[in-house]
Amino acid sequence: MQRIVECVPNFSEGRRPEVLDAIAGAVRSHAAVRLLDIERDADHNRSVFTLVAPPEALVPALFDAIKTAAGLIDLNLHRGQHPRIGATDVVPFVPVRGVTMEECIALARELGRRVGEELGIPVYLYERAATRPERVNLADVRRGEYEGLKTEIETDADRAPDFGPARLGPAGATVIGARAPLIAYNVYLNTSNVEVAKAIAKAIRHSNGGLRYVKALGLLVNGKAQVSMNLTDFTRTPIYRVVELVRTEAARYGVTVESSELVGMIPQQALIDAAAWYLQLHNLEPGMILENRLVE
Amino acid sequence: MQRIVECVPNFSEGRRPEVLDAIAGAVRSHAAVRLLDIERDADHNRSVFTLVAPPEALVPALFDAIKTAAGLIDLNLHRGQHPRIGATDVVPFVPVRGVTMEECIALARELGRRVGEELGIPVYLYERAATRPERVNLADVRRGEYEGLKTEIETDADRAPDFGPARLGPAGATVIGARAPLIAYNVYLNTSNVEVAKAIAKAIRHSNGGLRYVKALGLLVNGKAQVSMNLTDFTRTPIYRVVELVRTEAARYGVTVESSELVGMIPQQALIDAAAWYLQLHNLEPGMILENRLVE
Repeated sequence: MQRIVECVPNFSEGRRPEVLDAIAGAVRSHAAVRLLDIERDADHNRSVFTLVAPPEALVPALFDAIKTAAGLIDLNLHRGQHPRIGATDVVPFVPVRGVTMEECIALARELGRRVGEELGIPVYLYERAATRPERVNLADVRRGEYEGLKTEIETDADRAPDFGPARLGPAGATVIGARAPLIAYNVYLNTSNVEVAKAIAKAIRHSNGGLRYVKALGLLVNGKAQVSMNLTDFTRTPIYRVVELVRTEAARYGVTVESSELVGMIPQQALIDAAAWYLQLHNLEPGMILENRLVE
Repeated sequence: MQRIVECVPNFSEGRRPEVLDAIAGAVRSHAAVRLLDIERDADHNRSVFTLVAPPEALVPALFDAIKTAAGLIDLNLHRGQHPRIGATDVVPFVPVRGVTMEECIALARELGRRVGEELGIPVYLYERAATRPERVNLADVRRGEYEGLKTEIETDADRAPDFGPARLGPAGATVIGARAPLIAYNVYLNTSNVEVAKAIAKAIRHSNGGLRYVKALGLLVNGKAQVSMNLTDFTRTPIYRVVELVRTEAARYGVTVESSELVGMIPQQALIDAAAWYLQLHNLEPGMILENRLVE
């Protein structure tokens, strides 16, 4: 079975296609890396690349992409709605198949060291790769954005980067880390009463006392109440537990789950885990799934 | 995504390793074919090979395997508990990924024609590839075994093969066809009363009025009542519907499902279907599963 890591670098460019082409070209020059998707947002002036590759192939490809972005994006000229501190703003490594979180943390550190030392770009490690609790959350690391960090990095010892100089050039700083795959998952209720969706969202989300790896909002979408969620670590807060808790909370209001939907991609394991849980399968192993035996 | 067909040929040899080695060698001489498993049974004097390959690679590999078996196995000398009519007894093609049942039926016919014409072995098409209703079931095609068929094939027009001569040599006849993947699935109940398992098995199996693609027995296994099942077409009688029907029938006796288990392999799609059903996912498509985008 081929080992796979996903990486989702965010670049502070969503308007100039030639810049994105150059970054994509830097990625594609590494044959073992597959560029699955580029999501470009002109308002945010930001683009999100989705790459997958065996772990050993990722660091050189990302190094080249970051180097290319640094040469073409000047943060002093960058305007956009989305908060950012660097040309390459955030680089999360995500374990997908046959790879541990620890290996992804090691990749983040390896890339961070090279970017800091060889490109002279300050690097902050975040999420699971963070070296301090106050750097776990991206929003905390990005506080003040490029403009604010420019002064603080030189004057405030707490903002000293994990790698690279304590000084911002036009490419800014880059936040590199490791996190579990994110699942964007929405549940529709058989009611048009958005208050029910809001109450359920509040009950199940981490910030209000709910499940640890759940972010949730209640919305009205096409006349239906929707619980809109981000599941930030399905290995520890699995999708089946989330939907069953939504179901239980909905029953409190005499409401049922009408359907659910994924936004974007989901790791196969999240669905396999759900099947095994509902079917009460006690002996499911990866080798029993026929397709898993087809890949070398 | 690589297209995959599984093929599970049964050979009438379970005692002489050198014969199985020769057949395995014939399969392995085709680089695109993977031999996943050989299950050898000395009492049955029979072995089951599990092969997977892109559809275009399978027919030549099986032709060579059947030719090798015909040269080394003499049905006049073969003794074993399992019913059989040929050196290569049964050859089912099973669609696994990106392949339709119709394509598997076409593979069965192509292989059947070559085996009949080039090797002079009578071939009967069965299951989904059957040319007559009375040849759908393997047991009907194998009636009388090698010894009985030897006379009948020459005297009874109803037993004329689909391909090849109406005359049996020492290699006997071969039954070739296409079927859905088979899932061997057992559900354990929280009771030691085997009568409950037997009553549930009777309620859910096709032969007594239950679900069409379910065979079931009630057994006592390690002191637990077990509903032991073969699901013969999970695309039409899905695994989640089976376990939920078991649950409903069990409730009639005040009994619950304690756990379930797979025996052997399961196609990934059967688990994905179960996850989507329980999670009420209305928009799941193959491209949304990350791993499906990794395979060329």
